[in-house]
Amino acid sequence: MRRLSPVPFTAVSLEDDFWRERLDTVLTRTIPSQYEKLRSSGILESLTIPKPPPPLRIPPGAHGLSMQVFWDSDVGKWIEAASYALAHRRDAAIEAQIDEITEWLARAQLPDGYLNCWYIGRHPEQRWSNLRDCHELYCAGHLLEGAIAYHQATGRRRLLDILCRYVDHIAEVFGPGPQQKHGYCGHQEIELALVKLYHATGVRKYLDLAAYFIDERGRQPHYFDVEARERGDDPGSYWFKNYEYSQSHKPVREQDKVVGHAVRAMYMYSAMADLAAVLDDAALKKACEVLWRDVTSKRMYVTAGIGPSASNEGFTQDYDLPNETAYAETCASVALIFWAQRMLHLEGDGRYADVLETALYNGALSGLSRDGTHYFYQNPLASDGSHTRWQWHPCPCCTMNVSRLVASVGGYFYASGDDAVAVHLYGASTASLTVAGRRIRIVQHADYPWSGKIRIAVESERPLRFALKLRIPGWARESSVAINGTAQKSPPVVNGYVELDRSWQTGDVVDLELTMPVERIHAHPLVQADVGRVSLRRGPLIYCIEQADHAETAVGLLRLPGRAELRIEERKDLLGGIVTIVADAEAAAPHPAAGALYTTEACATLPARLMGIPYFLWNNRGPNRMQVWLPVA
Amino acid sequence: MRRLSPVPFTAVSLEDDFWRERLDTVLTRTIPSQYEKLRSSGILESLTIPKPPPPLRIPPGAHGLSMQVFWDSDVGKWIEAASYALAHRRDAAIEAQIDEITEWLARAQLPDGYLNCWYIGRHPEQRWSNLRDCHELYCAGHLLEGAIAYHQATGRRRLLDILCRYVDHIAEVFGPGPQQKHGYCGHQEIELALVKLYHATGVRKYLDLAAYFIDERGRQPHYFDVEARERGDDPGSYWFKNYEYSQSHKPVREQDKVVGHAVRAMYMYSAMADLAAVLDDAALKKACEVLWRDVTSKRMYVTAGIGPSASNEGFTQDYDLPNETAYAETCASVALIFWAQRMLHLEGDGRYADVLETALYNGALSGLSRDGTHYFYQNPLASDGSHTRWQWHPCPCCTMNVSRLVASVGGYFYASGDDAVAVHLYGASTASLTVAGRRIRIVQHADYPWSGKIRIAVESERPLRFALKLRIPGWARESSVAINGTAQKSPPVVNGYVELDRSWQTGDVVDLELTMPVERIHAHPLVQADVGRVSLRRGPLIYCIEQADHAETAVGLLRLPGRAELRIEERKDLLGGIVTIVADAEAAAPHPAAGALYTTEACATLPARLMGIPYFLWNNRGPNRMQVWLPVA
Repeated sequence: MRRLSPVPFTAVSLEDDFWRERLDTVLTRTIPSQYEKLRSSGILESLTIPKPPPPLRIPPGAHGLSMQVFWDSDVGKWIEAASYALAHRRDAAIEAQIDEITEWLARAQLPDGYLNCWYIGRHPEQRWSNLRDCHELYCAGHLLEGAIAYHQATGRRRLLDILCRYVDHIAEVFGPGPQQKHGYCGHQEIELALVKLYHATGVRKYLDLAAYFIDERGRQPHYFDVEARERGDDPGSYWFKNYEYSQSHKPVREQDKVVGHAVRAMYMYSAMADLAAVLDDAALKKACEVLWRDVTSKRMYVTAGIGPSASNEGFTQDYDLPNETAYAETCASVALIFWAQRMLHLEGDGRYADVLETALYNGALSGLSRDGTHYFYQNPLASDGSHTRWQWHPCPCCTMNVSRLVASVGGYFYASGDDAVAVHLYGASTASLTVAGRRIRIVQHADYPWSGKIRIAVESERPLRFALKLRIPGWARESSVAINGTAQKSPPVVNGYVELDRSWQTGDVVDLELTMPVERIHAHPLVQADVGRVSLRRGPLIYCIEQADHAETAVGLLRLPGRAELRIEERKDLLGGIVTIVADAEAAAPHPAAGALYTTEACATLPARLMGIPYFLWNNRGPNRMQVWLPVA
Repeated sequence: MRRLSPVPFTAVSLEDDFWRERLDTVLTRTIPSQYEKLRSSGILESLTIPKPPPPLRIPPGAHGLSMQVFWDSDVGKWIEAASYALAHRRDAAIEAQIDEITEWLARAQLPDGYLNCWYIGRHPEQRWSNLRDCHELYCAGHLLEGAIAYHQATGRRRLLDILCRYVDHIAEVFGPGPQQKHGYCGHQEIELALVKLYHATGVRKYLDLAAYFIDERGRQPHYFDVEARERGDDPGSYWFKNYEYSQSHKPVREQDKVVGHAVRAMYMYSAMADLAAVLDDAALKKACEVLWRDVTSKRMYVTAGIGPSASNEGFTQDYDLPNETAYAETCASVALIFWAQRMLHLEGDGRYADVLETALYNGALSGLSRDGTHYFYQNPLASDGSHTRWQWHPCPCCTMNVSRLVASVGGYFYASGDDAVAVHLYGASTASLTVAGRRIRIVQHADYPWSGKIRIAVESERPLRFALKLRIPGWARESSVAINGTAQKSPPVVNGYVELDRSWQTGDVVDLELTMPVERIHAHPLVQADVGRVSLRRGPLIYCIEQADHAETAVGLLRLPGRAELRIEERKDLLGGIVTIVADAEAAAPHPAAGALYTTEACATLPARLMGIPYFLWNNRGPNRMQVWLPVA
């Protein structure tokens, strides 16, 4: 694919459909409620230096650190999410809140530009002494992303200027020079933020700093060893034991296994893809491709959840994908979307969009409740009923990650370039974009993801030649295209996109139909948790069975015969209106030896009705038993 | 069954067979190596008050406690195991070691009888201030069991006298009196030790104290709350959050679910069964029965491992029996054996012996390596190859639990009473016992558990009438009995025992044959981890497949067709000589879409040979992938 650039969400209007409803919820409920939580949890107060630092409300974790060291990042992420909301609809109250935060930050900032409220308020003398654990650069990155977004939404520069001063200070402290620290953050994030800042400002030094952080990572002597010794600590007594946790076990270009903390990994790979694109760095691109293949072929749930283990919030062994204990942090799926979008535009291959779409509609969206004020941190693929959504969390990272995603979701739909427009995602929307140097509009009518019928109208004042590239998702085994009512016979499909290269003008309409049968998905046979089981997919949605829909049978007893027909049923009354999957299935009957835990007889089965709902909607009717992978009868 | 009493292991000689080999290993290798570990780890040194207390070699755990508070218990358990060894074969070196420990304890003991070396050496002023966490009574119980065993093995009273003085002190401190503490230990153990002491001494007060600890447990106001307030702690800030952990959430007679820390639970239920028997307490017996049914019908692995969760070292939800993450602590299966033996003699029902035998040959024995110096703390039912045996552990409880079990295993074989002799377990052995007031010998010839052919010879000088009760294990669906070569037609089977009630004399021989086909075991359909899988059992042994025996196929790809014949193959060359299970099975073939993690096609299978070895022997050839539950093709 000739390289295209994403059409920013500010140029994409989502219309009355799936995403509009969720966007409205985020704008009107999620973002205000998050501000309230930031206030009531003391996070906002922690910015008001030089007041005395707030008491440690949260006890230190196993490694002796308070989660309060991450608080600046939560503020930054909320500003980013709120700014995306402002881009949809200006709001004086929210702007006043951000402006107030800006003034707190302005007062807190030290003369040299340093700006981390936890260190300034508590241990200014210890700043930059523990990058491994204390996340100063991570916090800086999130504040920076927030500042860029606020500037783009409102045009106000004050917060961005504060952050630029901070980044200028960081660029003095860190780098290859003999007087500089050869360090990088234990929790990657600032790297991708710096690339954003480069794009926003054009200042090359920000790009160079991002590249420095990426390429210095994992080199020997290891910076985390060096700084530990400088603190008087024994590097060998590192509480996490290994540097795979932060993907700093070796230089990033040599990494070929997706390891460690999943969110850190995804943020890093996103920055690597960014740098590969801007610097045209083939080696970095190659590293991204190897890592992508690793995660998607061996270490990803069918929901595009990633990172099965709670102990490292991340990756374990190949094919180790337990369902009930799946960590699959919401943040990790959101960050996978970031990386996938970058890979998609770097390589122009629809398989990246396939993963992006799977993560968006399943592993990430499950993190936010329908009411917009309850969250999942972990997204297991089975539950005994004990997993529940919460209103806030001692580490509230996921809350603002999912709100900033939804508030900017339109930015994942379209891309354009010199001679082509790509439609990556489907859903009723209007995009204003530039192609071949001319402004045009693409108007999409669809009832996606419930239906695969999509109509795309081009609005161009004058005839304009370009390739309209429509993504044919990997899940769509059959599709048809008509232009102005004329079916197209075998239009060329290149890298997952049907390319309609012609002269377009207002009035031209393309009808795309993607067939959406319900399909049984089988996992790789080495995934022990899924042996003898299937999951159900329709379009981009992975389905689950929830106890709430099965009054007569414990969900754990349901079995799906291989021959059972899978039908769809539209249910406008349920969960805001969804398409369900129903089947005449079976339920394991009580064991022959009443109550026996182990017998030599396989148990009998009785007829039972099985009903699936989209996975992302589970647990909106209270805690509930749930399963994605269904045993085959 | 008329009530019978176990024949003590000192009256049972194990002959050249399965248990003799393991017993010799424990006597010659395990017990000496454990002494060496107790020495090199500083545990012995910690007894040598008034030397300064040893430095804290092990950092405190999450709850701020050092595992050193348990050290006295490790010493007690080693003395117990070593004393059982001495009963088989006196050993001056071991006796000198125990006598030296005895002198250390004598010097450490305070004038009032108090004897906990950790508190005496570090915080004598804090004694009895935190029964919830600090295990003083637990330690006392293990020292007491050790002292009783040493006295019984050697006749020496000094250690027992020291412990009786300590127990006398405990009986003054704890009890219902207004000046006494109404407390009990966070980790049950002393209760069953006190019953042993009662049986050893006949002193009623020890029995009363055991009953007091059992019945006070879980009453309101809750003692752990009371003592926390007395310490100045907030009971609500208890690190474990709930008292189910120590089965003190409600009075024991009201408990009907097996919850919390598995070892604590089993020790407590053992003491409850003891008290039910001695005091003829029907309500306590009933509580035991309810709890027994709960654990065996909903919360026990097929290996009789118990306690799936690492977080509480114990129980979770009904049917929550994950395989790879199974905690299934060795100690818990050992303690289940203790409880099962008591229930067996309380009720005379062979189903208790079935669980006892399953735990003995599987969940407990797996904890000890063939070489006798490597251990499992956790006994998972599947492994990705990362689980490994260790030589010692910061909490070495399991090491001495399995050695004291094996050193006294003969004590589980036989029971006798006024008019009956029961053979609970099979294996070449000779028991000297009293029945109908007369001394006789039972000589058993068998190649158990490899063969179900058992010959039992009675040696009685004069004809003596009694019922010879031979257990027909639950796994044995067919059996035959012949007396002096004459087949018995449908001899009466009562509560799992065939009863041969006649006049016996020397020269009488019974041939019992238990058919031992290989059987497929199915788990209850609510056990999610085992849906679509079977385990293989032959006789009392649960089998597993280990990667070491499958050079050509990853164990995780093996599938066992329902129609596949399961054959046995004797392998004298393997693991000391075993019977293996072999089958023509299948291996899942690579996915149609090369490398794809998820596809819409079920994968094909290829022929493959499957070979099972007894579960308890796994991981004797290094870490290895392993599975007990095999997917059905």
